[in-house]
Parts: sequence; C-alpha cells; structure tokens
Amino acid sequence: MQNSVPIKALAFDVFGTVVDWRSGIARDVAPILARLGRPDIDPHAFADGWRKRYQPALEEVRSGRRPFVILDTLHRESLEDLLRQYDIEPAAVGEETLTDLTHAWHRLDPWPDSVEGLTRLKARFPIVTLSNGNIALMLDMARRAGLPWDAILGAEVSHAYKPLPESYLATARMLGLAPSELCLVAAHHSDLAAARAAGLQTAYVARPLEYGGRPAPDADAAQDWDHEVDSLTRLADELCR
Amino acid sequence: MQNSVPIKALAFDVFGTVVDWRSGIARDVAPILARLGRPDIDPHAFADGWRKRYQPALEEVRSGRRPFVILDTLHRESLEDLLRQYDIEPAAVGEETLTDLTHAWHRLDPWPDSVEGLTRLKARFPIVTLSNGNIALMLDMARRAGLPWDAILGAEVSHAYKPLPESYLATARMLGLAPSELCLVAAHHSDLAAARAAGLQTAYVARPLEYGGRPAPDADAAQDWDHEVDSLTRLADELCR
Repeated sequence: MQNSVPIKALAFDVFGTVVDWRSGIARDVAPILARLGRPDIDPHAFADGWRKRYQPALEEVRSGRRPFVILDTLHRESLEDLLRQYDIEPAAVGEETLTDLTHAWHRLDPWPDSVEGLTRLKARFPIVTLSNGNIALMLDMARRAGLPWDAILGAEVSHAYKPLPESYLATARMLGLAPSELCLVAAHHSDLAAARAAGLQTAYVARPLEYGGRPAPDADAAQDWDHEVDSLTRLADELCR
Repeated sequence: MQNSVPIKALAFDVFGTVVDWRSGIARDVAPILARLGRPDIDPHAFADGWRKRYQPALEEVRSGRRPFVILDTLHRESLEDLLRQYDIEPAAVGEETLTDLTHAWHRLDPWPDSVEGLTRLKARFPIVTLSNGNIALMLDMARRAGLPWDAILGAEVSHAYKPLPESYLATARMLGLAPSELCLVAAHHSDLAAARAAGLQTAYVARPLEYGGRPAPDADAAQDWDHEVDSLTRLADELCR
C-alpha cells in the first residue's frame, strides 16, 4: 500500500530499529555482573529484564500520574529495581557504576546497515529521531555510532512519550509539515500503528534479532504498512529511486 | 581570561555568527521589490529594517505578554509591518510570496569559514545550535548550507528566547552538562554577557560585516571573553590544539 502524498521527511524510531539494544546492554552488563560475583545471571536475560521495565515506566508518565522525566531517569530507576530482583543492593554496586551502566543505553551499536542506509536516505530527505530516548542519550549515541541525524527530536523535545498521538503530531509540526508528509520508520508494529492513527506515513523495518530471535511482543499488531523492508539500505533503494 | 573547567560541548548563536543574514535577505528581497515596482527601496536597508523588528517582537514573548510562538511567525508579522511602512499592502504581495520571503531566513549563506570551522570543532566537541530560530528554520538552513550540527536546540526546544537565563540553562541541562561545561559561541556581546551570567563559558567571534561594516548595536557591551577569535577556523585552532 503506497500513500500518494510525497514524503518530505523521515522520522526514526531508534532502539531496535537503528541500534541493537540487547547486544549492547549485555556487553556492558557482563563485566559488572562478573565483578559482583554473579556469573549465574545471563547478561542477555538482564538486558531483556531491563527493557521489560521500559513500557510500565513510560506509562506512569504517559498517564499523567507522574510529571515528565527523561528516559535516563527511568532507565536508572528500572536498573535499581532489576538489581534488587536479582538480590543485588544498588548501593553495593556504587554510584559511579550505576551511572555508567545507565549510560550503556548511550553506547549501543547500530545494525550493520544503519549508517549506510541513513547516509543514503539523508541525501534525499531530512532524517530526524522520533525516539523516547532523551537528547543527551541520542546525541552521545549518534556521535559514537556515526548516525548522521539532521535533528534530534522525540520525547524530550515534544514532552510526550510514544505512542501518544502528540509525540508524532508535535514532530511533524516542529518540522513545519502536515502529519501526512512525515513517514515514521520503525521496527515495531505498535509504534507504526500509533503513527498511522496520527496521520503519518509508515515504513516497517524487520529486525528479527532485536529480541535475540524470539518474536516481538507486538508481532500481532502487524498491518500492511506503506513500506516494508528488512534494512535501511533497502529503504533507501525503495525511497531514493 | 581562560576558564579552567574543560569545555564539554559548544553551543552556537547562528544569525550573524554562523550565517550572513543581511546579504541573504537582501538577495532574496531584491527581485521581489523589482517585481513590485519599488526599485527605490534598497534591499540591504530592507534587511536591516526587518532585523530591527526582531528584538521588539521577541520581547513580547520573553515578557510573557504573548504565549510562545516560533520565529517564523514573528518574521512573517515583522515582514508585513515593514512592507506597510514602505506603503506596500501585504495582500498585494500575495500569500505565496509572503511565505517564500519569510523563508528567506531558512536560506542564509554561511560565512566563508563556518563549514570548515564547525567540521573541525565537531571532531572534538558536540556542536549544537542555541539560536532563537525555530527547528524547521535551522534544519532547512543546515541542509542547504552543509552545517554539520549534532543537534538543533535553542528557543523552540527550550521554549525560552535568548537572552533569558533559561535559554542557556535548559540547553546545558538537555545536554546533561553543568552550565560551566558548555561554551556559547557568538558574535554578539549581549548574548555572551547573558550566557556568562548563567554560568556558561564564552567565545566571541568578530563578524565585522554583519551590519555591512557599521558597528554592532551592542558594541558597548564588550567584556573580556574566555575566547576571542575572528573566525570559526581560528576557534578550532584554539580549542582543538
């Protein structure tokens, strides 16, 4: 299904779509678990447990029960909660290590096609982030990984966490575009469904390794998206013809 | 005077510091004045008159008398006001031309040293905008001129127009930095003075042609800044040693 309005800019989901959060978190968690004398904890299971706390933490803010706080703050709180579940007292880990580990989310590696794909797409379209990650997180990640964003937008700029409609609408507005002129690129059907409901165009990127090969939690929310590809280089093939 | 805290990021004023607004506006205004049969109006004087309406328009928002609106909106209003002063009825100019001319601020050219200087500085420091220009304006300008920003911050993101303290403080906060770790780079003493009062480091870039060779309106606000240079390539020489 192709939408007939020409795309004027591309907005990207980042965690899972552009970067591989699971491998990156596991890589940075592993030496700390070893140092804590806890080789029994699988670093990938730790990463999954941390990510599982993501939506409930965001929901506190989305629902209005809690004022807006940046994702770094939510990641830090979820980390402490997860450590306690493994019978590790956060204070025993130490402030410096807790801060550094929270910043593991700033140090995620891109999927192999991401930098080339974004670079090619940028030659034709403005490319911006539309992530729930905060500005400093996105900026650190982009500089380390070489992600050539034109602008870092998303939750901290719009003060709205996805999938609230305002997160998509504010991003289009700040770009001076109608919602239908903006296309969300994401590996998550739930994100794309909310973007479509807000009037955006949609591009799905399959990332079968995001959950280590297991199905995504929102696999049943699949629709026929405007574009469906298996890499950002393929998306460039399709949109930059 | 050198501040001893290491700089962790550079925030840039843009109009006048990175791009030459006067020449760019005059260039885009000239053919429209010709078309309107008004060769008597000097395009550079028109540019100066438009810019002169900038601070009073911002002051309406800074003072709280008016809710936050983006700079594109203020530029459009100032344009209509200026046209009327020249006895030109905006309606006679036409909606399309008014919109296009307002977007002349999106099409300003960089000073000759800007792209090279920013590129060299970016290799060492995150470089972000801290301008009163709105996001779409800054993004269009950056793509057209090749300005390699890591992030577009400033008034629309912080919802505070310079020189309000919050504009500088919010930018540092969003970067995860203490104010003293952020350095404002600007061609305007008044901007630097406000940044210094908010705790930022300061780098002055002399731009003697900003007002066509005439002295800047804030020339008497000069102080000893932490860095004083005559181009962004010189700033790179100084900060990237």
